[in-house]
Amino acid sequence: MTNSLMTASHAAGKGSVPDAVFAVLQKANAAIAAIGKDKVVNASIGTIYDEDEKFTYFSTVLDYLHQAAPEEMMNYAPISGLPEFLSSAIDQVFQGNQPENTFAKAIATPGGTGAIRHVFVNYLEPGQKALVPDWFWGNYRTIAEEHMRSIETFTMFDEENKFNIPSLKEKVVQLLTAQDNLVIVFNSPAHNPTGYSLTEKEWNEVIDFLKECAGDKHKKITVLLDIAYIDYAGEAQATRKFFRLFNGLPKNLFLAIAYSMSKSFLIYGMRSGALVGLSSSEEVIEEFSRVNAISNRGVWSNGTRGAQRLLVDVTKNPELKAKIEKERAGFRELMNKRAVIFMEEAKEVGLKTFPYQSGFFITVPAPNPQAATAKLTKDHIYALHLKKGIRVAICGIPTYKIPGIATKIKDAL
Amino acid sequence: MTNSLMTASHAAGKGSVPDAVFAVLQKANAAIAAIGKDKVVNASIGTIYDEDEKFTYFSTVLDYLHQAAPEEMMNYAPISGLPEFLSSAIDQVFQGNQPENTFAKAIATPGGTGAIRHVFVNYLEPGQKALVPDWFWGNYRTIAEEHMRSIETFTMFDEENKFNIPSLKEKVVQLLTAQDNLVIVFNSPAHNPTGYSLTEKEWNEVIDFLKECAGDKHKKITVLLDIAYIDYAGEAQATRKFFRLFNGLPKNLFLAIAYSMSKSFLIYGMRSGALVGLSSSEEVIEEFSRVNAISNRGVWSNGTRGAQRLLVDVTKNPELKAKIEKERAGFRELMNKRAVIFMEEAKEVGLKTFPYQSGFFITVPAPNPQAATAKLTKDHIYALHLKKGIRVAICGIPTYKIPGIATKIKDAL
Repeated sequence: MTNSLMTASHAAGKGSVPDAVFAVLQKANAAIAAIGKDKVVNASIGTIYDEDEKFTYFSTVLDYLHQAAPEEMMNYAPISGLPEFLSSAIDQVFQGNQPENTFAKAIATPGGTGAIRHVFVNYLEPGQKALVPDWFWGNYRTIAEEHMRSIETFTMFDEENKFNIPSLKEKVVQLLTAQDNLVIVFNSPAHNPTGYSLTEKEWNEVIDFLKECAGDKHKKITVLLDIAYIDYAGEAQATRKFFRLFNGLPKNLFLAIAYSMSKSFLIYGMRSGALVGLSSSEEVIEEFSRVNAISNRGVWSNGTRGAQRLLVDVTKNPELKAKIEKERAGFRELMNKRAVIFMEEAKEVGLKTFPYQSGFFITVPAPNPQAATAKLTKDHIYALHLKKGIRVAICGIPTYKIPGIATKIKDAL
Repeated sequence: MTNSLMTASHAAGKGSVPDAVFAVLQKANAAIAAIGKDKVVNASIGTIYDEDEKFTYFSTVLDYLHQAAPEEMMNYAPISGLPEFLSSAIDQVFQGNQPENTFAKAIATPGGTGAIRHVFVNYLEPGQKALVPDWFWGNYRTIAEEHMRSIETFTMFDEENKFNIPSLKEKVVQLLTAQDNLVIVFNSPAHNPTGYSLTEKEWNEVIDFLKECAGDKHKKITVLLDIAYIDYAGEAQATRKFFRLFNGLPKNLFLAIAYSMSKSFLIYGMRSGALVGLSSSEEVIEEFSRVNAISNRGVWSNGTRGAQRLLVDVTKNPELKAKIEKERAGFRELMNKRAVIFMEEAKEVGLKTFPYQSGFFITVPAPNPQAATAKLTKDHIYALHLKKGIRVAICGIPTYKIPGIATKIKDAL
């Protein structure tokens, strides 16, 4: 417990634990300064770096921004977002796979973070818990705690490294005994930090179970689907087919989708995304739109207009869309190449990983992650230690540096 | 009370009152479509429009953005903001007028809204009240209510149209009886919606009084200074001199400054600003920096990097700064020209206004504002009705349309 000087009592403890990613990054940079970039593996960066270890982007997007009209860059967007952006966000999310007989609306948010913030605040009472897998983007906890909510975890993988539906079910039942509102976070496809995507079979089982739970009409169940990495999980149609499974939901089972332009357009620093609501009930969607618009106004006012206009133009202009998709596919292949090298070596040397399929990160379970990552620094490998594992950010490691990493991790465990 | 469908109980009522600005804007646009732009006065726009009623901007900023480096536009900024941005924000806020023997730090926020959000959340306990003048930007209330706080008002002007310090004092004393944390919002210079700026004499009296209040060491008093319009209140040195009065503050009297690039650089839609903390205590400033960084992470993650880099370059590059200042001075003069016409006519026809000095808005007290603005629409004038007055957004009305507005308002009252 930190004593407050000027802040309110609930705020005093914030930030008393130093940021882990930042600490790793600092050490990696110090090593680079000391022995040179070529000898250091910085496995902690969460953005795509090219084979020269430089920040990378879509040149089509750069050209677009460098020619953007002044009003589109600089004027306010409406509070909820440009109306065309909202329909474009829905288009980009579903790409033709919106389930039949459903209603969808969108609200512009600063990246996925802002979307998650709104769901935790507006779909949970203060003090309630959101359910997340035990392998999760640490910021879910920060967002929950910033807003006087907290998180509960289920065990994401069973002993056979399969998605652990029994654990999910157990925790859902437990939480629904204690609270009437429930938010369950799924980060799929291309889960951060494991690279896992739920299969259609798993989704079916999850959705059927949640439909059962929603038989109790006092319960309000929200599936919060974080699709930050969806565009690196495969072709648009393949990665979006599972949305069709969310049909015929009861009114009290609601799907909230956190869509982010950060990775999909590599404009992380422009802070643009959307919260898309999907329901079988038009009323629920009207409520969603009304409530979250006011939350926009009362937290950050409105969103980055330039990024919103980009999404509108991508949606309207097939040529622009195709150019970006081509560039994106190139990076997807690049990350896949890196991942294949790592995963094959891991298999060879008997290093267990979680079932990576796609995305920016591979995660290795570790009994003592902090000791292991410390050991790895002797080999000049800088990776983030999680509570029970080590995260290897293949998005930022050039292909030529991948061979040997799995072996060294195996040795460090 | 609105019943909740899927949202948490506290969220259900959000947005049940339609947005007033939007409604006025819709009517103005309908009138323009019907009878033509030349015959309609849209007095509801909160951004600067030029004499052709077009959105306007600094061409220097456009050139800058059109040449910005890809990483600066697209990569993440650090959670608190680029370190150079944080020092630049402090530079831009004080421009040499930081009081002696004080400590200052900054945190990047999406515009002023984000800065206000952090202060309401981190410097008030849930359920407590922020004190604002009775003429205030309506969003203060939205921000407070979004975060389970509320607002209390003091009477901003007395019967002689002077800043009403006795009312402020009375409400401060009342609130400090009920709560240990107090946030008092001042929107000065160039207050929205009246265009008023506190004088040095008034600031002295306010600060002396608050120092007295802070004699009770159980109290934590935060002055939240919203300076969104500071760069339209005059030359940098003249508008910033009053900062020097905040010297020798006790540790439990804290200054939080909401700085926005929205108006200062006319990049409203890029969502960039900063919360700058100032204290005589280094500890208080360290706490400020630590706590608000985590709040960034837990609400919107990080800020718009391109705008941050712009401020850094403006601060480092005197030529760039001078060019922008020259453009800004042009718009300041333009608004002044519009205001002078309105204010002189108001005086001639005996229309009482609040003591406008500078800024985007002039406000006229009105016993029945809604009826008066409705009457004005018959003259094709579309202005925002406030609770007890009418706001005339001279920032958006071309000079040639100003003559006659004051007279018509007088007639409509």
